[in-house]
Amino acid sequence: MGWVHEIRVSWGDCDPARIAYTARIPWFALDAIDAWWLSHLGQGWYQLEIDRGLGTPFVNMNIDFLSPVTPRHMLECDVRPVALGKTSVAFRVTGRQGGKICFEGRFVCVFVTPSDFTKCAPPPDIGALLAEHMAPDEPEAARGAQQQA
Amino acid sequence: MGWVHEIRVSWGDCDPARIAYTARIPWFALDAIDAWWLSHLGQGWYQLEIDRGLGTPFVNMNIDFLSPVTPRHMLECDVRPVALGKTSVAFRVTGRQGGKICFEGRFVCVFVTPSDFTKCAPPPDIGALLAEHMAPDEPEAARGAQQQA
Amino acid sequence: MGWVHEIRVSWGDCDPARIAYTARIPWFALDAIDAWWLSHLGQGWYQLEIDRGLGTPFVNMNIDFLSPVTPRHMLECDVRPVALGKTSVAFRVTGRQGGKICFEGRFVCVFVTPSDFTKCAPPPDIGALLAEHMAPDEPEAARGAQQQA
Amino acid sequence: MGWVHEIRVSWGDCDPARIAYTARIPWFALDAIDAWWLSHLGQGWYQLEIDRGLGTPFVNMNIDFLSPVTPRHMLECDVRPVALGKTSVAFRVTGRQGGKICFEGRFVCVFVTPSDFTKCAPPPDIGALLAEHMAPDEPEAARGAQQQA
Repeated sequence: MGWVHEIRVSWGDCDPARIAYTARIPWFALDAIDAWWLSHLGQGWYQLEIDRGLGTPFVNMNIDFLSPVTPRHMLECDVRPVALGKTSVAFRVTGRQGGKICFEGRFVCVFVTPSDFTKCAPPPDIGALLAEHMAPDEPEAARGAQQQA
Repeated sequence: MGWVHEIRVSWGDCDPARIAYTARIPWFALDAIDAWWLSHLGQGWYQLEIDRGLGTPFVNMNIDFLSPVTPRHMLECDVRPVALGKTSVAFRVTGRQGGKICFEGRFVCVFVTPSDFTKCAPPPDIGALLAEHMAPDEPEAARGAQQQA
Repeated sequence: MGWVHEIRVSWGDCDPARIAYTARIPWFALDAIDAWWLSHLGQGWYQLEIDRGLGTPFVNMNIDFLSPVTPRHMLECDVRPVALGKTSVAFRVTGRQGGKICFEGRFVCVFVTPSDFTKCAPPPDIGALLAEHMAPDEPEAARGAQQQA
Repeated sequence: MGWVHEIRVSWGDCDPARIAYTARIPWFALDAIDAWWLSHLGQGWYQLEIDRGLGTPFVNMNIDFLSPVTPRHMLECDVRPVALGKTSVAFRVTGRQGGKICFEGRFVCVFVTPSDFTKCAPPPDIGALLAEHMAPDEPEAARGAQQQA
C-alpha cells in the first residue's frame, strides 16, 4: 500500500440499495487525488488553480467496482501516480473497506494553463514530485497476487 | 443518434474552473441511464428495485472527457445499450453540448437480486427490450467518422 | 401557483429510507431559483456572475419539510420573489409531488460585486423584473387556506 | 465550543465564485449531525435505521450564511442538541474556518418508526444521551457575546 486518504462514508452517500451510490465512487476517488496533491505538494487543486495558475483536468477515468461501499467502515483510498507523460499524469486509486478492495480506478489528467485551457508541461518541481512517487502501473489486486506468488 | 436525455447544467454543477466538475459527469451519465430505463421500460432503478426486486449495480465505467461541460447549453446525453451478456448489460452514453461531443462513456452493469446481491439473468421482458434497442458497441465519434467515410 | 420548475428526482437522490436525502432538498430549491433567473431574465447565476459581474449569495435559508420527496412523481417547484430590499431579495420555493406540498422554503440573497464581495443595489432592469413578479410573502399552504376560506 | 466535527472542503465543493456552493452547506451540517450520533451513540443514521429501526427525519432547517466557506481551512462544525420534545430533537450546528463563524444553523428532527414513518418517542437511552448533552438554544455568536459581556 502507498499513501492512503481516509473518507467517512455517510448515510447521505447511500442509495436505497443501502450502499454508496455508484456516482459517489468517482467523487470519493477524486477527493482522494485532490488530497494526495495537498498532502504531497502542499497545494490541492484549489490552490494549484488560483494561486499558481495550473489546472489538471481529467481526460479519462476507468473504474472497476468490486465490492459495495457502506458506512460500516472507513473508506481507505490508496492513491499513487503511475505514469508521467510530457503533458499528462495518471493516478491509480484503490478503495478498501475492512481490508477488502471495493474499487480500483485509473485516472488520466493533463496539465493546462487555466486561462486558455492549453496543454503544458508540468512545472519542474511538480514533475520531480510525481517522478519521485511513481508506482507500478497496475491494479493493487494484481500487485497483491504477485507479492504472494 | 439514438435516444437522448436532456440535462440542465447549473451553477452548482460547476467548479472554480467555471466548468462542470469532473465528478458530476458520471453522475449525469448515470441519471441518463436511469432515465433510459424509465422511458423504455416504464420503470427506473427506483421502481426496478422496490417494485420488482431487480438491481443493476455497476461493475465498470470508462469515460473519456473530450470537451468541458458548461451551463451555456443543455447537455444532451445519447444513451444506448451495446452489449447483453447472460447476467450483464453494457450501455454507452455520449454527452453533447451545442453539437460538440463533451464525453463518451461505457458502463457495464450486472443484474442482481437485491436481497442477497447474487447475479441473475434479466427477466425475459427486459432481455427482449435490451435486445430490441441494441446499438453498435463503439463510440459515437467513431460512428460519425464511419458515416462520413 | 406561480412559475413552476420541474425536477426529475432519481435513484441517486434517495437515501436508504427510500426518499430524497434531506440535503438534496435545498439543492433542488436552489436549482429552481437558478432556473427562475434563467427563465425570467435570460441569465442564470452562471451568466449573471461571469457575463455581467453580479453575484447573489445567500444569507439565509429556512425550509419546512412537510412530506417525503420520491422518484414516484416529478417534483414541481413553485418559485416566486416575495421581498425586495435595497441590496437583497427573498424568494419562496414550494415543492409539490402529485399535488401534495413536500416542502416550503424561504431564501434570502444579497446582491454583490463578485470581485470584492461587497453589497450593491440590483441593476435597474433586475430590480424592475423582481418588482413585477413580486408575490405575497407567505407560505403556499397559508395561501391555499386563505383561498378556500 | 462543544463537540466539533472537522470537514475537509475540496475543489469539487466550490462553485465558480470560488467558495463552497450554498447547497453544500446544509450537506456539511447534516454530515456533522450524523457524525455527532456516531461519535456519541456509536450509531449514525445508517446504523440507527438499519440495525435499530429508528429514523430521525428533518422537519425544519434554518441556516444563516455569515462568511464564505473555502478549501483554505478545515471546516470545524460545532454540533450540539439544544431542545428535546416528546417526539423531536433540535440541533444547532456552527461552522467555523480559521476562527471565524461561517454559518449557524438550527435543525429540527422527529423520531419515527421507518416502516410506517409514524412519530414515536426516542428510546430511553437516546433520550438520556440527548438530555445529558443539551446546550443552550441560541446561536454561538450570541453565546460568544454573552461570555465577553
